[in-house]
Amino acid sequence: MENVPIKRRRGRPPKNQSASYQDTRQVLIRVGLAALTEKGYSYTGLDEILRVANIPKGSFYHYFDNKEAFGQTLIEAYGHFFASKLERSLSDNSRTPLARIQAFVEDAKAGMEKFDYRRGCLIGNLGQEMVALPESFRSLLCNTFRDWESRIARVLTEAQVAGEMPDHLLPEPMAQFFWIGWEGAVLRAKLEKSSQPLDQFAEGFMALVRGS
Amino acid sequence: MENVPIKRRRGRPPKNQSASYQDTRQVLIRVGLAALTEKGYSYTGLDEILRVANIPKGSFYHYFDNKEAFGQTLIEAYGHFFASKLERSLSDNSRTPLARIQAFVEDAKAGMEKFDYRRGCLIGNLGQEMVALPESFRSLLCNTFRDWESRIARVLTEAQVAGEMPDHLLPEPMAQFFWIGWEGAVLRAKLEKSSQPLDQFAEGFMALVRGS
Repeated sequence: MENVPIKRRRGRPPKNQSASYQDTRQVLIRVGLAALTEKGYSYTGLDEILRVANIPKGSFYHYFDNKEAFGQTLIEAYGHFFASKLERSLSDNSRTPLARIQAFVEDAKAGMEKFDYRRGCLIGNLGQEMVALPESFRSLLCNTFRDWESRIARVLTEAQVAGEMPDHLLPEPMAQFFWIGWEGAVLRAKLEKSSQPLDQFAEGFMALVRGS
Repeated sequence: MENVPIKRRRGRPPKNQSASYQDTRQVLIRVGLAALTEKGYSYTGLDEILRVANIPKGSFYHYFDNKEAFGQTLIEAYGHFFASKLERSLSDNSRTPLARIQAFVEDAKAGMEKFDYRRGCLIGNLGQEMVALPESFRSLLCNTFRDWESRIARVLTEAQVAGEMPDHLLPEPMAQFFWIGWEGAVLRAKLEKSSQPLDQFAEGFMALVRGS
């Protein structure tokens, strides 16, 4: 179906969409994610996204009710995309629990290097900009962190069972500590154009959870 | 002198300035710092700053060569302002070294709460935006972190002497770890509108440097 041109009706297409409609919507999401991950919300114009996506100006509203709705979709899409990426490392049972977290760190380092440290974390970028963003974004961003935290907490619980983390440490606060510091490390890596802050943070975190 | 109206010459005033010229320049810096600490660079328009500072449109260039030069001045001014704030806690010899770092954390928490978690760290905000900022800002921002790091490293060295931090930990990497994570905690505190992320990070950091 994908390459068959479809004769468009005038006006908004129905919400129960053709493959072509869904493809175009996915292109908008992909281009939007790249822009927001690199520059954040304020520097990203809708015109630029439509130009890069090669979508005629004015047809944006066929796909999203407004820019706020587009932003909400991007936050949720990034949250899911990143959770999958995270799980590729965290569910690799050939490694010990803490080695899985380290594998995520190595994966993230490679990802940042690939884009010359221009792209960071969409959730961190928008969190930083929150004071100037639609208030509806706040709970979406917080919930994304909660989701990522629960995934790291699960692995830290496994680390305790495996004897890698002492029993007196609590997985949930340690997982929250991880994401608090990790977002700072991503920010610093972009600023310094180096993976060294990511390594520095990961090393400290590992020492903390090993209790050594 | 401050309240005596001064008859202005036409054109740029000489660089070797009157008290009034310096006062006006300081007002621009103060208003600029508040705006950048809250919203970052991209959401801050020059028009808005001039309006809040009550300075006639068009006279900005009497005080700064261009917006980039203004930004550079703000980064340096914030770096110095924050270093003084930091030293108020770090040089308080009535406390143990680690208690001085904790005193800074408490001071920062009170500061963020006072502005309802709308204001963060100007250096962190601009670091996050760096991909879209004049390249000349990058080394100024990195150098500011180096300066703050050296101040925390000095106190951590004192903590070792005082027996609060084990000898196998190195003050410089630990100080870098502090600022990497602290910027993440400030970002999260703004997002969650809560000081809890600042406490969470400080607690983990203290456990790490105490080696406990």
